[in-house]
Amino acid sequence: MHLSELTHPNQLHGLSIKELQEIGRQIREKHLETVSTSGGHLGPGLGVVELTLALYQTLDLDHDKVVWDVGHQAYPHKLITGRYKDFHTLRQKDGVCGYLKIDESPFDHFGAGHASTSISSALGMALARDARGEDHKCVAIIGDGSLTGGMALEAINHAGHLPTTRLLVVLNDNEMSISPNVGAIPRYLNKIRLSPPMQFISDNLEEQVRNLPFSPELNRVKEGMKRLAVPKVGAVFEELGFTYMGPVDGHNLEELLATFKEAHKHPGPVLVHVSTTKGKGYAIAENDQVGYHAQNPFDIASGKSKPSGKPKPPGYSKVFGATLSTLAENDRRIIGITAAMATGTGLDIFQKRVPEQYIDVGIAEQHAVTLAAGLAADGMRPIATIYSTFLQRAYDQIIHDVCIQNLPVFFCLDRAGIVGADGPTHQGMYDIAYLRCIPNMVMMAPKDEAELQRMLVTGIEHDGPIAMRYPRGSGYGVPLMDEGWEPLEIGKAELLRSGDDVLIVAYGSMVYPAMQTAELMREHGVEATVVNARFAKPLDTDMILPLAKQIGRVVTMEEGCIKGGFGTGLLEELMEANIFVPVKRIGVPDLLVEHATPDQSKAELRLTPAQMSEDIIQLVGKPVAIGV
Amino acid sequence: MHLSELTHPNQLHGLSIKELQEIGRQIREKHLETVSTSGGHLGPGLGVVELTLALYQTLDLDHDKVVWDVGHQAYPHKLITGRYKDFHTLRQKDGVCGYLKIDESPFDHFGAGHASTSISSALGMALARDARGEDHKCVAIIGDGSLTGGMALEAINHAGHLPTTRLLVVLNDNEMSISPNVGAIPRYLNKIRLSPPMQFISDNLEEQVRNLPFSPELNRVKEGMKRLAVPKVGAVFEELGFTYMGPVDGHNLEELLATFKEAHKHPGPVLVHVSTTKGKGYAIAENDQVGYHAQNPFDIASGKSKPSGKPKPPGYSKVFGATLSTLAENDRRIIGITAAMATGTGLDIFQKRVPEQYIDVGIAEQHAVTLAAGLAADGMRPIATIYSTFLQRAYDQIIHDVCIQNLPVFFCLDRAGIVGADGPTHQGMYDIAYLRCIPNMVMMAPKDEAELQRMLVTGIEHDGPIAMRYPRGSGYGVPLMDEGWEPLEIGKAELLRSGDDVLIVAYGSMVYPAMQTAELMREHGVEATVVNARFAKPLDTDMILPLAKQIGRVVTMEEGCIKGGFGTGLLEELMEANIFVPVKRIGVPDLLVEHATPDQSKAELRLTPAQMSEDIIQLVGKPVAIGV
Repeated sequence: MHLSELTHPNQLHGLSIKELQEIGRQIREKHLETVSTSGGHLGPGLGVVELTLALYQTLDLDHDKVVWDVGHQAYPHKLITGRYKDFHTLRQKDGVCGYLKIDESPFDHFGAGHASTSISSALGMALARDARGEDHKCVAIIGDGSLTGGMALEAINHAGHLPTTRLLVVLNDNEMSISPNVGAIPRYLNKIRLSPPMQFISDNLEEQVRNLPFSPELNRVKEGMKRLAVPKVGAVFEELGFTYMGPVDGHNLEELLATFKEAHKHPGPVLVHVSTTKGKGYAIAENDQVGYHAQNPFDIASGKSKPSGKPKPPGYSKVFGATLSTLAENDRRIIGITAAMATGTGLDIFQKRVPEQYIDVGIAEQHAVTLAAGLAADGMRPIATIYSTFLQRAYDQIIHDVCIQNLPVFFCLDRAGIVGADGPTHQGMYDIAYLRCIPNMVMMAPKDEAELQRMLVTGIEHDGPIAMRYPRGSGYGVPLMDEGWEPLEIGKAELLRSGDDVLIVAYGSMVYPAMQTAELMREHGVEATVVNARFAKPLDTDMILPLAKQIGRVVTMEEGCIKGGFGTGLLEELMEANIFVPVKRIGVPDLLVEHATPDQSKAELRLTPAQMSEDIIQLVGKPVAIGV
Repeated sequence: MHLSELTHPNQLHGLSIKELQEIGRQIREKHLETVSTSGGHLGPGLGVVELTLALYQTLDLDHDKVVWDVGHQAYPHKLITGRYKDFHTLRQKDGVCGYLKIDESPFDHFGAGHASTSISSALGMALARDARGEDHKCVAIIGDGSLTGGMALEAINHAGHLPTTRLLVVLNDNEMSISPNVGAIPRYLNKIRLSPPMQFISDNLEEQVRNLPFSPELNRVKEGMKRLAVPKVGAVFEELGFTYMGPVDGHNLEELLATFKEAHKHPGPVLVHVSTTKGKGYAIAENDQVGYHAQNPFDIASGKSKPSGKPKPPGYSKVFGATLSTLAENDRRIIGITAAMATGTGLDIFQKRVPEQYIDVGIAEQHAVTLAAGLAADGMRPIATIYSTFLQRAYDQIIHDVCIQNLPVFFCLDRAGIVGADGPTHQGMYDIAYLRCIPNMVMMAPKDEAELQRMLVTGIEHDGPIAMRYPRGSGYGVPLMDEGWEPLEIGKAELLRSGDDVLIVAYGSMVYPAMQTAELMREHGVEATVVNARFAKPLDTDMILPLAKQIGRVVTMEEGCIKGGFGTGLLEELMEANIFVPVKRIGVPDLLVEHATPDQSKAELRLTPAQMSEDIIQLVGKPVAIGV
C-alpha cells in the first residue's frame, strides 16, 4: 500500500512491521518534500513517524480519541488521516492548517497551537466517555517541553487521582522544546533515559530479599524493596498515580507496538515514555534541532534556505535582542526573561552577550511573569519577552502580581498583530484589549525599529508596569543607533503630517501604512493629518482631542481586535471630553483570522493602504477613483 | 515580653521556647478575638503560629525576604511585624488588609490574594540577590492546596534546576485548601505524612548492603540502595532537585527550629514539609475546617455566627447551585466544575445532589477550563464555575481552547463586581473587558436571582462559548421557580421603564440600582427609560440604538471596569451606526478598589442610586435638589 492510498488510519491494522516501515519512509519523504517547498515545522513531525504509526495500529480511530499537544508535531497524523492529497497546500491560505483543527478532519479531535493543553482535554474526553458508559481509548501525546507548562502538571495531578479513568499519556521526549529544555523535570527525564531499559524485578528477587538475614535496619530496607519492585525509573510519575512505562525507543516499531499494547491493558492513567529524535531520518535536521524545528523553504540536499527575493532589513526581534543586550551591558539590573522562545524573540542574542542576565524558564509563562514581579520587587528591571499570544497564559499574573503591586516589569510582546501561516491560535490580536483595562499599565508600540530602540530605553526607565507590542517580521530598514537612545515621554504622541480632511491616529505597526494611506488619498485630493500615537495608554489626549475637534473626522488604525482595542480607547476619551465626531476604527473585526500570508490576511481584512484609502475617502464623502 | 511590645520580628531572636509559646498563645488569642469580631480568615492563620515564630527566629528580617502564598495565612506575620495595634481594623475600610500588601509594611515583601505565586516571586528575589552578590535568605511559604496550582509547579521545575540558588520553600501542609484537597500531589503528601518520621539511613547500613552476597539481581538492588540512602520520603521533590526535609510537626517549636536551622545550611533549593492543623488551638475550628476557613463575626464560646440584622434572601451562589442541580438531574450532559471553590460557588449543593456530574480539580483554573473544553468537544455541557477574579488564570484557555474552537463551555462567574473586604486582588472587575474582545463569546448577566435561573437554562442550551457574571452576596428575594425555566433569546434586552429624558442601559447587578435611580430622578422631574441589557455580547442593538437616537442621552451602568467594558461596547455600536449622542458610562474607573464593605466602595465610586441620580440629573441639565 502506498501512503496515498491510506485515507483512514484504521487501514494500518494488520500491516506488518516492514509495511509500516515503508509507510514511514513515505511519510518522511512527503513531509520533507512539502516543508522544504512551502516551509513549516520539520523536526517535530519527523521525530514521531514511528510513534504515530505504532500507536494508530493499536487504536480504532473510528472510536478512540487522540489529542496531540501543539499540533505542529502532527503532520504524520495528517498524512494518514485523509490529507495526503492536499498536503502540498500546508500553511497556505485555504490550505491544510499547520496545526490540528477540529473543523479540518473528524480525526482532529482537539486543536492546539499553544503547548501543554493535551492532557487536560484528553482527560475531559475520558470523563465524557465514562459518563456515558462507553469504553473507547483516550490518548494525549505531549512533548517533554510541554510537560513543564503548569497546566499539564495540573492535569497530571488530577488524572493521577482517578485510578479508574483510563487515559494514556504518551510522552514524546525529544529533549527539546524549540530550544533545549530547561528545568528539573526535563533533567529528571534525561536521567531516566540514561537508566537501563525498563525491567520488572522478578518474583525470584523478592524471594531473595525476603530471605536476607534479619537486622532492624535491613528490615527497613526490605520494606523499601516494594518500591524497587516497580520499575526503578519513572518513580515520580508512579508517585503521582500514573503507571509508568518506558523509556521506549521511539524509532523501534516492535518496541513501540509491544508497549502500547501493554499500556492499553491498564485500567487507569498510564504514561508511556517514548524517546525520540527531533528531525529523525533527515541528518541535517538531526544535527541542528533548533534550526530545523521550523523552516522557510529550503534545499533538501544542502539544507540551505532558498533565497526569498531581495534581502530584507533586520527584523524587530533581532533589533530588540541586540539593543537590549547593549542596554543590559551597562545596566546590571536588566534581566531578560523568555519562556522557551529564545530564538523567536531575539533573546538568543542577549543570551550570548549577557548570559548572566538571561533567564529561560521553559514553557512557563505564568512563572515567567511572577518571577519577573519578584525580581522587580527587589530592585531589578526584568524584561518579560513573550509573544502577544502566549502572554495570554499569564494574564492573572500581569494583573495580580505586577499591576496591582505597580511593579516595574517591562513586557515586550513580540508577534503582536497578524502572524501569518500559524493561524488563529497564534494571532497576536487581543493584547491591546486585555491590557488596556488593567490599572497602572502603560502601553506603547513603535512605528519602526528605530522607535523600538527608544521605547526600550523608555520602558526600562519607567518605574511601573509597561508593555511594548511590535509585529512579526522585518523592520523598515531605517537607520539604527548603536547607543545613546533617548527615552520618549510617556503618553506623548508624534504628529507626522497635517491635513484638514481627516485625522488618522495610528498605533505601532499601522503608522507607516497610515502614512502610505495618506499619500494615496492626497492623489485624490483628500488631505490627512497623521498622528503616531506611540502610547495606547495613556493616550495623548492633549494632542489628539483638539485635532479631532478641529478636523471633525477621525480614523484609528491598529493591528489588533477593534473590540475594546486602541481605537475604542480614543472613542472613550472623545466621549469623556464631549467631542462628537465620527470615528472609523480600522483593525481586526470580531472574528478569527485564519492561516494565510500576512499580506493575504491584511488584504482580506481591508488593511492595505490602497483599501484603507478607498474606505476613508468614501467616509470623507469625496469620490472614489475606480481601480484604487 | 507581651505580643503588643513585639514590633519588629527580630525581637524574637533569643527568646526561649517557653517565651515563644507564650507569644504564640497571645497571637492565637488576638487572632481569634479579632476575627470573631470583624470576620475574616481564621483557620489558616491559627495553623501557622508556631511555623511563623520558629521560622522568624531563624531569620534576620532586616535583610531576609519572606513571601507568603495567599496572604490570608499571614495574620500571625502581621501581628509580629508592627500591626498588633491596628489589628482590630482588619479588613475594614482604611484598616489592615486581609492579605499581605507591599504598601502596608516593609515586611510584606510581596502581596497575594490568589494562590500558587509564592515560589515564583521568592525565586525572583533570590535571583535578584545573587545578581547583586548579596547573601540573605529568601523564603516562600506555600500551602499544600496552592502547590497543585500549575504556576507553583512551573516554579519548582525552575528552582530545582538551579542547584546553587539558595531558596527555602516551606510547605504548610494542612491537608486542605478551602475544601479538602484534590489530586495526586496532595495524596502523595498524605502518604509522606503517614510515613515514619524523617530518618537518614546510616553509613552502617550502606556498609551492610555493600557486604550482601553477590548475585546479578541483588547487584541491581545494591544500586538501588543509593536511592534509599536519601530520606525515603519526599523522593518526588528530591528528583526535582530540591533537598527535602520533613515531615515536621508544625506545632512543635523545637522540631521546627532544628529543621529550619538545618535547612538554612543548604546551598540550593530546600523544601521543608511542615504538617499543620488548620484552626489549631481553637477546637471548634479544628473540627470544622471548611466552615472556619473564613468566618463572619461569631461567638467564640459557641462558634456560632452572630446574627447580622434581618435575615437575607438566598445568595446568588446558593440559587445557582440549587438550580444547576435540578437541571443536571434531568440532563446527564451537565458537568459542574470547580477549582477548589465548592462552598464559595454553591457547587457544594451540586456535589451533594449530583455527585456523578461534579468535578473539583483543585486549585487549577487552567486545567479546569481545558478539561471543560475536552468535555464539550465530546458532547457534554461543562459548567466552569469560577470567580471572576480567578478566571483570569485561565484566560488563554478561554481563548485558545474554548473560543477558537467554538466549544459549548458555559462559564459561570461568581463574585463579579465589587467583592468588599477581600480587596483589590479579589475584585471581579475585568471580566467584561477581557471576555468581550474574544470572538464567539456570548456574555450575559442577570438582573436578579430569578433571571439567573433563566440564564442558566439559556447557557446550557447555547451551542457555543457563553459566560454569565453575577455578584457576590444576596439576591433580591424575588420569587423563584423550582423547575420549568424558560430560556432567554440570546442578545435580547428587556425594556423595564420608559421616559423621555434619558436612556439608562444597565447590565446585571446594576439593573435594580438603575431602576432606583430612575425613581429618584422622577422625584426631580427627570424621566428615564431603563433597559436591562441582559447581554453584553451581542448587545441588543435593535432595541437600544433606536432608543438612544430618539432620547438623545445615554447612561450605561455596570459593576466592572469602564475601560473596555459594557458601556464601551455600546459606545462602539453607536459609533458604528453613526449615532452621535452623549454617553455617560457609569462603572469603576481605571483604579484599584481597596478593601471596604461593598456599600462603602460603591459610595466612594459614586455608584449608589442617590449619587447616580444626582450625576445624571446634572448631565440632563436640570437642577439638582440639594441633599439628594
